[in-house]
Amino acid sequence: MSNLDSIFSSHSIAVVGASSKPNTVGQSIFSNLLFSGYCGVLYPVNPKAKSISGVRCYANVKEIPGELDLGIFIVPSVVTAQALLEAADKGIKAAIVISAGFKEIGGEGVKREEELKRIVKEHGIKLVGPNCLGVINTDPDVMMNASFAKTMPKEGNISFVSQSGALCTAVLDYAKGNNFGFAKFISIGNKADVNEIDLLKYLHKDPKTDVILMYVEDLMNGYEFIQVARDITGNDENPKPILAIKSGRTDQGAKAASSHTGSLAGSDEVYEAIFNQAGIIRAERVEELFDLAIAFAQQPLPRGKRVAIVTNAGGPGILATDSCIRSGLELASFEETTVEELKKHLPPTANFSNPIDVIGDARHDRYHAALSAVCNDPNVDSVITILTPQDMTDIEDIAWEIVNTSKSCNKPLLANFMGIIDVSKGVQILEENEVPTYIFPESAAKALASMYDYTQWCSRPRTEVRKYDDVDGETVRKIFEKVRQEKRVHLPEIEALEVLKAYGFPTLPSELATSADDALKAAKKMGYPVVLKIVSPDIIHKVDVGGVVVGIDSHNELLDAYLEMTNSVAQKAPKAKLWGVNVQKMASSGTEVIVGMNRDQKFGPLIMFGLGGTFVEALRDVTFRFVPILELGAYRMIQSIRSYKMLEAFRGKKAKDIHAIADIIMRLSQLIMDFPEIQEFDMNPIMVYEEGEGCKVADVRIILNK
Amino acid sequence: MSNLDSIFSSHSIAVVGASSKPNTVGQSIFSNLLFSGYCGVLYPVNPKAKSISGVRCYANVKEIPGELDLGIFIVPSVVTAQALLEAADKGIKAAIVISAGFKEIGGEGVKREEELKRIVKEHGIKLVGPNCLGVINTDPDVMMNASFAKTMPKEGNISFVSQSGALCTAVLDYAKGNNFGFAKFISIGNKADVNEIDLLKYLHKDPKTDVILMYVEDLMNGYEFIQVARDITGNDENPKPILAIKSGRTDQGAKAASSHTGSLAGSDEVYEAIFNQAGIIRAERVEELFDLAIAFAQQPLPRGKRVAIVTNAGGPGILATDSCIRSGLELASFEETTVEELKKHLPPTANFSNPIDVIGDARHDRYHAALSAVCNDPNVDSVITILTPQDMTDIEDIAWEIVNTSKSCNKPLLANFMGIIDVSKGVQILEENEVPTYIFPESAAKALASMYDYTQWCSRPRTEVRKYDDVDGETVRKIFEKVRQEKRVHLPEIEALEVLKAYGFPTLPSELATSADDALKAAKKMGYPVVLKIVSPDIIHKVDVGGVVVGIDSHNELLDAYLEMTNSVAQKAPKAKLWGVNVQKMASSGTEVIVGMNRDQKFGPLIMFGLGGTFVEALRDVTFRFVPILELGAYRMIQSIRSYKMLEAFRGKKAKDIHAIADIIMRLSQLIMDFPEIQEFDMNPIMVYEEGEGCKVADVRIILNK
Repeated sequence: MSNLDSIFSSHSIAVVGASSKPNTVGQSIFSNLLFSGYCGVLYPVNPKAKSISGVRCYANVKEIPGELDLGIFIVPSVVTAQALLEAADKGIKAAIVISAGFKEIGGEGVKREEELKRIVKEHGIKLVGPNCLGVINTDPDVMMNASFAKTMPKEGNISFVSQSGALCTAVLDYAKGNNFGFAKFISIGNKADVNEIDLLKYLHKDPKTDVILMYVEDLMNGYEFIQVARDITGNDENPKPILAIKSGRTDQGAKAASSHTGSLAGSDEVYEAIFNQAGIIRAERVEELFDLAIAFAQQPLPRGKRVAIVTNAGGPGILATDSCIRSGLELASFEETTVEELKKHLPPTANFSNPIDVIGDARHDRYHAALSAVCNDPNVDSVITILTPQDMTDIEDIAWEIVNTSKSCNKPLLANFMGIIDVSKGVQILEENEVPTYIFPESAAKALASMYDYTQWCSRPRTEVRKYDDVDGETVRKIFEKVRQEKRVHLPEIEALEVLKAYGFPTLPSELATSADDALKAAKKMGYPVVLKIVSPDIIHKVDVGGVVVGIDSHNELLDAYLEMTNSVAQKAPKAKLWGVNVQKMASSGTEVIVGMNRDQKFGPLIMFGLGGTFVEALRDVTFRFVPILELGAYRMIQSIRSYKMLEAFRGKKAKDIHAIADIIMRLSQLIMDFPEIQEFDMNPIMVYEEGEGCKVADVRIILNK
Repeated sequence: MSNLDSIFSSHSIAVVGASSKPNTVGQSIFSNLLFSGYCGVLYPVNPKAKSISGVRCYANVKEIPGELDLGIFIVPSVVTAQALLEAADKGIKAAIVISAGFKEIGGEGVKREEELKRIVKEHGIKLVGPNCLGVINTDPDVMMNASFAKTMPKEGNISFVSQSGALCTAVLDYAKGNNFGFAKFISIGNKADVNEIDLLKYLHKDPKTDVILMYVEDLMNGYEFIQVARDITGNDENPKPILAIKSGRTDQGAKAASSHTGSLAGSDEVYEAIFNQAGIIRAERVEELFDLAIAFAQQPLPRGKRVAIVTNAGGPGILATDSCIRSGLELASFEETTVEELKKHLPPTANFSNPIDVIGDARHDRYHAALSAVCNDPNVDSVITILTPQDMTDIEDIAWEIVNTSKSCNKPLLANFMGIIDVSKGVQILEENEVPTYIFPESAAKALASMYDYTQWCSRPRTEVRKYDDVDGETVRKIFEKVRQEKRVHLPEIEALEVLKAYGFPTLPSELATSADDALKAAKKMGYPVVLKIVSPDIIHKVDVGGVVVGIDSHNELLDAYLEMTNSVAQKAPKAKLWGVNVQKMASSGTEVIVGMNRDQKFGPLIMFGLGGTFVEALRDVTFRFVPILELGAYRMIQSIRSYKMLEAFRGKKAKDIHAIADIIMRLSQLIMDFPEIQEFDMNPIMVYEEGEGCKVADVRIILNK
């Protein structure tokens, strides 16, 4: 028995702070445990009571006879540590601390929470909470409602991990209203000990859990979270989908907008990166979270994106078609035999192509015929059945037809029974027999699309982190050492270019010139046009001081530019130590992209990709990933920007060299892994050329940590 | 009494085809009329019955004593015309034809529908249908359920016009389940006579209707629809919001992708333009349509976008905050007096800033205090109240607090009672007292955001179509005459440029050259760089035949380009009649935009605007409007593309000259109004410069109709 088993499947529980007083949490939790049919032994602990709800009460934990697995604590926060310690001495393996008054109130509360942490560490106890609603396990062999939620859910194959206790009560009520159940239900509270990563690992192995839901306000450890979640969602033989909703505004104030990349790395983008890399399906709205969860929990995954729609009304059929197309699904084209079959059983006024209209006066026999036909059609991957309550509609019989088809068909079947009151008995039949049903078609289409996305995630090609052997770490190490010795953190471009070259990034011919004459010679050697850029360890934003001149076509222009630049810099940055100017071959024009890296204070290094120039600045059309980046991940980064079409073949123009961009992303990933002292890294712009023509880094900025 | 009054508020109805036979439409409609308490006289008509449901039945309409306002027809389609004719002779003013078997089945059905049209035109009858579910009016002075929907809705201030009968039954059931009512409910069927425009005009004047909902599959007359809808949504003293959902895939095959602009004008974009110009609020999902409708129907409009959130749980408060921000709303900052007031009544652990957390054990008194405080705060424009069902929560009393606050407060109040079963009594109190309530916060935020958008629409500056007097219509007329005479439809650029000049569009110096020598002279006059473009009435896509060379910097380059172009064109378009080459001053580089016009087969001329080049081609980031375009509309077109930020001031770069773009859009609007023979019009690219610097049309294509 693992320690988390002691939380979920204990044989004996001490409820410390159980009470008979109505409207108290101590009363609520004890009676929930007792009346939901807990299969182990319950021991109420309260020095002031002889019995609670007819069960013999103990003055303290020590008095309890026999072994004790789990302690539930509902005592005031000031005495919780003491109570926990006593229970630890009694040998509990796990604890759930319901009480509030810890980290969330600051000050003394923080200290109290530290004390709890110390105790559980010392005694090897697993603790959920404090400041939580509790834990529920609907397994008939356990039947534990260790929470103060009014409702014990019915048994189901969905488990829910929530960072908000109040949302738990709302969700339990919502589940009861919609007739769905849960396997495990956990309010994680302050996460003093057990956190979402521990719970994911546990639920991964839990045979009762097929779908994991999460309400997330913040995560503890982004990188480990990604690894654990990836194992669950797709690296296993039997993957389990994880669906999550993330709340919490992007607190842009908290981020120092110190650099270009930095100012784009809002916290929501960090979570987007985490969810993407972990294969977690993100819901936009709470309702959507459960709409999706029920579909995942009750139906098989679709093999493809071809949907069949069966409806007794035209309008809703069109709405469903719209929604499917908009969600990225396709309408199936039927086999001829399917159409023949339909013609045998449906009236001539019916529509035999997709969406199949069985006509308003259809009864269950027509639905039966249509459903059998589409389920047997190899061109159909999933089915949406729509019912509008019309005069002739035998709603319950049709519901049973759908249920029976669902049981014999290995494709996902979802239903839309449009309405509330008239269709309610049909809806109940569907719900009780695990056919996901929604009032309107849009939700069904969205759910199928999510399931199809997940099918694709599970069957994605598995790639590795590409390992580049052609890199020269020694050179980089020496450069960084020199920077450190000179007590700098910023690498002027000419130095940063050495780093790029050492790691095999495609660079442009460059030369440091310390006089106009040198500059002219360099330009002559590399050929015009060239770019002139000031080189100084003290100037990070070269443009701001007039330190960049592009498109220099001749000796005269170069001379003018050189003089103007040195004048401007002397005026605008009089104290800057100048190394000279960088004469660089001007990149031939291509599509500008940007690849950068910034460190999230909490989660570590994130690589950013986006189209360059105005796209990144004005449209914020960028993607983020944590390092190390797998080969597939690098390509996914590129493909997932909204403007990806700008890089694809289009109207006779060849596709851009995305392999070269992917190469840059993966080289950067390796560089960042090799040198954790890199704080910021910006290649902006990188010029990308047509497929096979590669790309060139036209400007770079590297900043090390302090 | 207008003719539509005879449909909605008749004093006497003949139900032709009424029946006693269970499960028939004739039985259903007659009993619905009878048992919903119709206030006028009902006459069932059926030659085979003496009475129906105890009401004396007539063998035919002629036998009915006294006057007759309205006939409802449920007879087979083959005899409908005859029945209608008899009723017309009896003097009915209006008819509702429920029967199907008309236009929707094609062939004979189309003819039958034409016959109905002829009859109603001849007799001045207004007809709803055929092929519809019927009409409902809940006015207590009328009480007419002339439909075969099982449910008579309760009285309400929302009217619903639906192009799908089946959706009507679903919506009525949904409304019953959610406790909201309707004023008028119309299934419009095939729209043989009465269409959505007639109904909008009627509902505009209807004192019982405050909010109009539409389910649209297609519209009859886009331009008139826009005019009528604009009058309703915003040009009146007492505007009424119109909310619509549009279904139907973009049938791109139906559109000849004959031209550049044409291939972008998918039908959904046409509807988007119609809804935008009409001030109609478009819902994405059916559920959203009603979520919004209830808020509009039951609450005042917010004056601004500052929301106060009152909650008894942190997590849901954060979810609501997220949703508000994402929907474009703001969280209100409270006055100091508000915070003081809150501190007086709430426990110290509460959160006194927005969102206000009254803490999980809050009872109605705390909600009362918080609601009073925010309603009195001048910085608050609207309020969302969140309740999660916790142990201490007195749900019904809190519901009453919200209801009472709503009645005394002139700001919109929406509620989230999160759950279904536990909160049901509270939800019922809210619903019955017209406080819109939603299960989860996202819907409330979306509804408030829509209401705020509508507030802005109502208070938008009213502008006119700008009338340009500096245009020379005579010149354009002459050019078009010449084109006609030469039996052409396409204007070569040099000719199209004359049209542009005549209407005051900003053009570049251009000269037609018929020899290399001429070309050199022209280039010398205007100065390099220049562009060379082939001029031929037979070549529409110049680039495809090597007919465009840009960036010519010198005499030598020009000579080379000239020879190469004439060679290439001679090979690739050997039969094309050549007029020469257009030597054009090359536009200095700016931001490329495109303005074009194409005629929608059904709705007429649509002007398109988008960013040029890849933006329009790969990203389809374009907007459409019908002509004539109001001044504000021209600016709105420009501002509503997703990439509008590319035109705004950004990071030290000046804003682009959007006034010059608006000028081009409005001049084009006038040109199109003046010359309906223009079939297609494309200015691509137009170079836009910084504010005050104007823009230049760098290429133009005009095609007249045949």
